[in-house]
Amino acid sequence: MLNQPELNTLSKNDRIDHYLLIRRIELRSTRSGSDFLSTELGDKTTTLNANVWEGFTEVAVKGKVGDVVRVAGTVEEYQGSLQIRVSSIRLATTADEVKANYFLPQSKRNLQEMKDEFNKRLKNNSNKYIKNLLTQIFSGERFELFCTAPAGKSWHHAYIHGLLEHTLEIIKICELMCEFHIELNKDLLVAGAMLHDLGKIEELSYNSAFEYTDKGKLIGHIVIASNLVRDEIKKIPGFPVELEINLIHLILSHQGKLEHASPVVPKTAEAIALYQADELSAKVNAYKNVIESELKADSNWTRFIQLADTDLHKFNINSSSEENTKKSLFD
Amino acid sequence: MLNQPELNTLSKNDRIDHYLLIRRIELRSTRSGSDFLSTELGDKTTTLNANVWEGFTEVAVKGKVGDVVRVAGTVEEYQGSLQIRVSSIRLATTADEVKANYFLPQSKRNLQEMKDEFNKRLKNNSNKYIKNLLTQIFSGERFELFCTAPAGKSWHHAYIHGLLEHTLEIIKICELMCEFHIELNKDLLVAGAMLHDLGKIEELSYNSAFEYTDKGKLIGHIVIASNLVRDEIKKIPGFPVELEINLIHLILSHQGKLEHASPVVPKTAEAIALYQADELSAKVNAYKNVIESELKADSNWTRFIQLADTDLHKFNINSSSEENTKKSLFD
Amino acid sequence: MLNQPELNTLSKNDRIDHYLLIRRIELRSTRSGSDFLSTELGDKTTTLNANVWEGFTEVAVKGKVGDVVRVAGTVEEYQGSLQIRVSSIRLATTADEVKANYFLPQSKRNLQEMKDEFNKRLKNNSNKYIKNLLTQIFSGERFELFCTAPAGKSWHHAYIHGLLEHTLEIIKICELMCEFHIELNKDLLVAGAMLHDLGKIEELSYNSAFEYTDKGKLIGHIVIASNLVRDEIKKIPGFPVELEINLIHLILSHQGKLEHASPVVPKTAEAIALYQADELSAKVNAYKNVIESELKADSNWTRFIQLADTDLHKFNINSSSEENTKKSLFD
Amino acid sequence: MLNQPELNTLSKNDRIDHYLLIRRIELRSTRSGSDFLSTELGDKTTTLNANVWEGFTEVAVKGKVGDVVRVAGTVEEYQGSLQIRVSSIRLATTADEVKANYFLPQSKRNLQEMKDEFNKRLKNNSNKYIKNLLTQIFSGERFELFCTAPAGKSWHHAYIHGLLEHTLEIIKICELMCEFHIELNKDLLVAGAMLHDLGKIEELSYNSAFEYTDKGKLIGHIVIASNLVRDEIKKIPGFPVELEINLIHLILSHQGKLEHASPVVPKTAEAIALYQADELSAKVNAYKNVIESELKADSNWTRFIQLADTDLHKFNINSSSEENTKKSLFD
Amino acid sequence: MLNQPELNTLSKNDRIDHYLLIRRIELRSTRSGSDFLSTELGDKTTTLNANVWEGFTEVAVKGKVGDVVRVAGTVEEYQGSLQIRVSSIRLATTADEVKANYFLPQSKRNLQEMKDEFNKRLKNNSNKYIKNLLTQIFSGERFELFCTAPAGKSWHHAYIHGLLEHTLEIIKICELMCEFHIELNKDLLVAGAMLHDLGKIEELSYNSAFEYTDKGKLIGHIVIASNLVRDEIKKIPGFPVELEINLIHLILSHQGKLEHASPVVPKTAEAIALYQADELSAKVNAYKNVIESELKADSNWTRFIQLADTDLHKFNINSSSEENTKKSLFD
Amino acid sequence: MLNQPELNTLSKNDRIDHYLLIRRIELRSTRSGSDFLSTELGDKTTTLNANVWEGFTEVAVKGKVGDVVRVAGTVEEYQGSLQIRVSSIRLATTADEVKANYFLPQSKRNLQEMKDEFNKRLKNNSNKYIKNLLTQIFSGERFELFCTAPAGKSWHHAYIHGLLEHTLEIIKICELMCEFHIELNKDLLVAGAMLHDLGKIEELSYNSAFEYTDKGKLIGHIVIASNLVRDEIKKIPGFPVELEINLIHLILSHQGKLEHASPVVPKTAEAIALYQADELSAKVNAYKNVIESELKADSNWTRFIQLADTDLHKFNINSSSEENTKKSLFD
Repeated sequence: MLNQPELNTLSKNDRIDHYLLIRRIELRSTRSGSDFLSTELGDKTTTLNANVWEGFTEVAVKGKVGDVVRVAGTVEEYQGSLQIRVSSIRLATTADEVKANYFLPQSKRNLQEMKDEFNKRLKNNSNKYIKNLLTQIFSGERFELFCTAPAGKSWHHAYIHGLLEHTLEIIKICELMCEFHIELNKDLLVAGAMLHDLGKIEELSYNSAFEYTDKGKLIGHIVIASNLVRDEIKKIPGFPVELEINLIHLILSHQGKLEHASPVVPKTAEAIALYQADELSAKVNAYKNVIESELKADSNWTRFIQLADTDLHKFNINSSSEENTKKSLFD
Repeated sequence: MLNQPELNTLSKNDRIDHYLLIRRIELRSTRSGSDFLSTELGDKTTTLNANVWEGFTEVAVKGKVGDVVRVAGTVEEYQGSLQIRVSSIRLATTADEVKANYFLPQSKRNLQEMKDEFNKRLKNNSNKYIKNLLTQIFSGERFELFCTAPAGKSWHHAYIHGLLEHTLEIIKICELMCEFHIELNKDLLVAGAMLHDLGKIEELSYNSAFEYTDKGKLIGHIVIASNLVRDEIKKIPGFPVELEINLIHLILSHQGKLEHASPVVPKTAEAIALYQADELSAKVNAYKNVIESELKADSNWTRFIQLADTDLHKFNINSSSEENTKKSLFD
Repeated sequence: MLNQPELNTLSKNDRIDHYLLIRRIELRSTRSGSDFLSTELGDKTTTLNANVWEGFTEVAVKGKVGDVVRVAGTVEEYQGSLQIRVSSIRLATTADEVKANYFLPQSKRNLQEMKDEFNKRLKNNSNKYIKNLLTQIFSGERFELFCTAPAGKSWHHAYIHGLLEHTLEIIKICELMCEFHIELNKDLLVAGAMLHDLGKIEELSYNSAFEYTDKGKLIGHIVIASNLVRDEIKKIPGFPVELEINLIHLILSHQGKLEHASPVVPKTAEAIALYQADELSAKVNAYKNVIESELKADSNWTRFIQLADTDLHKFNINSSSEENTKKSLFD
Repeated sequence: MLNQPELNTLSKNDRIDHYLLIRRIELRSTRSGSDFLSTELGDKTTTLNANVWEGFTEVAVKGKVGDVVRVAGTVEEYQGSLQIRVSSIRLATTADEVKANYFLPQSKRNLQEMKDEFNKRLKNNSNKYIKNLLTQIFSGERFELFCTAPAGKSWHHAYIHGLLEHTLEIIKICELMCEFHIELNKDLLVAGAMLHDLGKIEELSYNSAFEYTDKGKLIGHIVIASNLVRDEIKKIPGFPVELEINLIHLILSHQGKLEHASPVVPKTAEAIALYQADELSAKVNAYKNVIESELKADSNWTRFIQLADTDLHKFNINSSSEENTKKSLFD
Repeated sequence: MLNQPELNTLSKNDRIDHYLLIRRIELRSTRSGSDFLSTELGDKTTTLNANVWEGFTEVAVKGKVGDVVRVAGTVEEYQGSLQIRVSSIRLATTADEVKANYFLPQSKRNLQEMKDEFNKRLKNNSNKYIKNLLTQIFSGERFELFCTAPAGKSWHHAYIHGLLEHTLEIIKICELMCEFHIELNKDLLVAGAMLHDLGKIEELSYNSAFEYTDKGKLIGHIVIASNLVRDEIKKIPGFPVELEINLIHLILSHQGKLEHASPVVPKTAEAIALYQADELSAKVNAYKNVIESELKADSNWTRFIQLADTDLHKFNINSSSEENTKKSLFD
Repeated sequence: MLNQPELNTLSKNDRIDHYLLIRRIELRSTRSGSDFLSTELGDKTTTLNANVWEGFTEVAVKGKVGDVVRVAGTVEEYQGSLQIRVSSIRLATTADEVKANYFLPQSKRNLQEMKDEFNKRLKNNSNKYIKNLLTQIFSGERFELFCTAPAGKSWHHAYIHGLLEHTLEIIKICELMCEFHIELNKDLLVAGAMLHDLGKIEELSYNSAFEYTDKGKLIGHIVIASNLVRDEIKKIPGFPVELEINLIHLILSHQGKLEHASPVVPKTAEAIALYQADELSAKVNAYKNVIESELKADSNWTRFIQLADTDLHKFNINSSSEENTKKSLFD
């Protein structure tokens, strides 16, 4: 790990001597005709604007989004926002031993603990066909991708290991639903939970930024997952056809509605449980994160959040009501 | 409890000697001019047609929907459905000691166990204002109504004790979400879960059938619950204003979308958690029940279900895929 | 072919001595207690009600929807509709040499001509990968199924050979669009047209009636087609990845909108052309057919057609305006 | 009242010596590093940009949105819009005797006249329960708030006294509907009209700007009004339950559709009349105002108006058609 | 006027000796093979079923929907509904001097009074072009049609003179809006109100029943009205072009939304006023009528009303709350 | 034609000595107080920014959008975009013999060829009423306007001659549909295709820019076309009424859905064919053009396209898959 202060802890006039990731890069010229390099540079915590006025030739020619640079300079404020006044900049080399993915946001949960929780459930699946299938799928490089990928580009669990964290939440919610309803086929439902978003490992790229791949845009993670699962089922002799169809149905229908890009709506009790568990996990994570990151200054409200179709509110019982509370205690 | 076989266990030609609930009653005349009594009679398991051709004067004059009758006769089949051929019928009297609510469907869960689970959580609420509020609300006659009411007219948890069963499911789902997210205010969220559908005790009548009351239709359970909670908060000195507003917000927003009759959308992390937990509990219960009750004969598909906008499928791994499984094992 | 008059040519009092297909079958009893067999029997042109009052034991016990029966009787009218008064009925046997699929409606176009038109285009595809793929897919039993299947259950091209007829129309429309726009990749677009509804061969069953299969309901023809194509692509060494993704994209997006069950919307010029060509072929066929079959008596309007969200009008310039025309000729 | 020319009457090069309201305030620095104060300042007629380049320390440190400043300077034009070139600026003090609410837009109708019209109708209500209720509610400080509040943040009647003006319009429309339909309960309907938007007095703040309060966002004016009315009804012995439910129903349903945030849709003739009268009053006021304020220069069209989903047109029969008219007079 | 009791005043066993309108007519045969005539017969107040078992040959052969018959018989009850037991029936002849339109429901308002109110406003229009136009349009046979036509097939003002009644209501509402807003062009707006539904005189037929014409279905009343107005404008020399466009805009946009079949949305203040006035007049009339006609027995609720998307409630303060009222008076 | 290089062929530092069209013009002042002229100037291929710092008095005073100027200067780059550094500028005069419409984008198809194709079809119409009507309409100045107009403001066929090109495509698609379905009335359908967008000649202005006219906004091209056709039909004695209604129906319903501004939905087979043919022609043209013009640098994806609700992809089989192809050939 890099030993440098995180960007979101810095203030005006602080010194910068950092490795940072290029998130935007553009060569521009002023009205007077001189060129300068306009960039956005960031680490895993935030991203700042940085204009470079000299000594930028190498970076301008070779640098691209997703590359790491070594930057020296100062934090300054312009039009109410912090930016970096760059004194020197160069592209990082292999000698620097810094990887782009270091700069991506990550899950706060412990990775090994999440892997253990996941594997325990995989091993406990009592249907031998399903268990074989899961064992084949979640192994080797594919399992590593699964444990690395975010669950989304920006809305929920949009950080490294986010897909694993999100999947685990859904598994646990589904397990709880199986306690309420013995009629649910737990082996099938938990397998559906494990596999439902597997296609995200190919729908998104997440080496140096979270972007949709061509395949992700043209095929989508739902059909990608269905394809991956189908390929592995073919390798298992005697895999029951009905089981295959019902498992694929869980994957295809897990976004719950046609207009959310599921090509079929949930038609079994397991499918509706998976859809609603997914919604619950995704929405609460998304709202929590956006409330944390988008609160307006001196306010307990965020800006208007498009995907929630409202501004959001942080209820802070300590700050907001404790005083009232205390007062009333001594009335 | 009545010692009579449940209606859904009877077949063609079985004898009837039952107390049953009138669910429809109409005096009709045949084309030839003679009158007869056309009714639907049922117990908690199902409802059958029954035409009465003689000896029906008392019932015709005094009987109405929701009354209990004593019926003798035989089960017969007409146009593919079972019906009752009545030999004698009379209205039940107080001497019969049979109450109409005996004939209503009930939760399969143990009532006392559910009450205990609910009260344990009420006692564990660590916010004294909330705890006082919940203690005031869930007491006496109101608590009995709460433990009796269904959670809906026909779609989900539409049976006696259904509101309590549904509420407990949501509480447990919310507790799980609080394990995932320490940022959620658990005291507030669990209180919201307990209170969110409280208005159903006045929105519905559930003595002899599940019907909307005038108040239920003109005001709705969301505002009824908000009113009940507001009345009790006023009795608690020093109840923090912010806490009140946030708790009422949970109740008002718990149906998640304006078009689902919530006058405000969820704007806090707790509100979105409550909405999605409610959806999860309701949908899975509804799908499970409708799949059980509406499967077509010799099929693993139901008729078209309006509220799901599809027909639904029962996946039975034992019957449907075991044979395939076995075959492939010995290939 | 059977040598018997088609049902829709018969009138009141005509004699029946026909092989017909059972489309509904139910044992009922009259109010007086005697049993009778209530059925709907049809050929490829229409379906009539037929109640059988005696001699129906064998059919009642063994007959089911999709079976063929030999029926004698008379056409009569009841409440404004024709029905069959049955004098004798028996199940057809192998000795009768009558197949259920004879009774299904068929395309009016010549089958061989359609096959030739299709194969000519397949052979003319100038991309060797695509041509190999199409050759593999449209061969043997699968090609026969493709040439047999209807394109839908009831709305458009809902008759035997309908899928082939519909596919050919789309191909020709796409060819015309390629004349307008040289930028369109014709090889790709025509291949997409050929493959887009291929999944219908497994989504529907069409031996004795047009019904959705379990797989059809739980997976849907879009993903079924994508799977079939993907399996065959894997057998072709060096099939370009970009080409595969773009071809699969055509299949997945061909219903044009998420809410029409496409998991991705059209994102290429070829994809939008395929979607709109499909709409054009489907809608005109559907409207034409429903206007022919649903015109109200003595009217040039149909009943209200749900899928068109209106009643439909037949414009008959000969009957309606010729008189006016003639008059004006001699003014 | 202040004796200073209204901002919307000033032109380029006019002198400014005004009290104005701060509507935006921000400390910025130029690229060369010097700080300046960027503000928007306005009176009740309009708002202008004003950058302050020196002598702004006090205002920068203590000033905030909603404060009044004393400004001297000149009107200048920049990029097609007027702005203020500030020569001096200071915060107003109590000695200046200028209140922030002076700068808010106001209804053009006479306040006392509106109050009289309102009270006359209140006194004429012939149902004594309703009259008592209205008398209790529209009294003291609450009546003053009611007469002060705007009816909205920006769309319709968004000015001081706007709620009263809007309410009066609806009352008169409802009275006219009662002339058409004697079946309508006029006492109930007019009471509903008076009370329907009462919650706006707490949903909005309107001292120095029109903003939603926390309570407004989390509870909404519909439930706030319902609560206020319910509290007052409780103080009236014998208030008929049916009357209460129907009156609350009018308030809850007055936005007409669930998706417009009414938790119940209109279910009585009075409720539909109130909803449609509200729409009529609101829409015409909104369109009239936006056409006045948003006409593009040298055009009889406004910019695109989001809430109308179109640009809007001003029909000016004098300017546009008089010439044609005159010509035709002398044809 | 016919001197016969209105159908909705008759009870079981009352004698029938009436002229009635055929609203449905069908020749049927019983299972035993004998023919009978199944009809629905009505006057302006209601419609009853009537089966005719003998002496129906002439009516069966020549009678059709919209013809008048002379019927003798008795009122009887079958399955909870009244019907007519016919003893004799014959087609009315010209000698009977009974017109079909006598049997259509009519406005309760006085026709001459409505005509006078309308003409007064026409004469008061101060724009000479508009006044000329209105005078041309509302004259002769067209004015009689306008005064006769219903405003709709079944939802609002669906009775003879209903178009005039509806138009007058809108005019008065618009006049009130002009009192609120002097900016509105009253001459234009009132003309728009007068003309907006003029196309209904050709969209509907209303001689013996209210039905859509072919032209009504294929063109629609909006474009029909626009055409009628345009034809008359062409006859007026010098009619200002701007005025024509704005007046046609009022007609085209008066249904307010594209999805309500207006080809343009309201873009002027007058257009939005007309749309909202139309909504107000139509909805209140429709709700009032449906509440009167569809109340369920012993209930203050109607059946579910599709166009309102709810069941509707009749608030009867006298019956429902007076008792409570009285009690509280003597507390 | 002008003998000057097209703007989209120029690069940084190229000399400008051009006639260009003013697409935006604004007098601004710098912060230091000096005035300059800010403009956008373009030819038929593209539009560039151009600020003029001196010698702009005449243009500033008299120039307006749609005027032609003679400009000398250099191409330079600012913030990643090309712009013009102007050394001199003057308004073109009649002596320059340059028309504004020269600068508008045009169809790539040959105009005379398109006219011939159109007229051939007009002459081949076998219904003499229709042929007369079409001959009257498509003649003289109106035919020239029809051959000049674009088919839209910016989305599809938005270039000079675009309406004719679009109309021809639809005609050919409709002819193909008539080959599939002999039931379609080809004379009627092709006439509908020719006339459907005729109203665009008055809905849009297209002399120097593509803008909606007042009439276009307030009436819309659908009703304008209907009016034009109706006026011409009136001149033809004996034109069959049914034919008129069905032809007008084609025009009114050609946008297919009420929410797309058609006042009636398609109700005949011809109407649905015309609507779907229009969709096909419009969408493919629009997607093709936007993919060509909006591809992001170094990408085969466009920016997000609002009207397609997605970003769009260019499939380039040559560049993207040829390498893979070649490799696999030598495996």
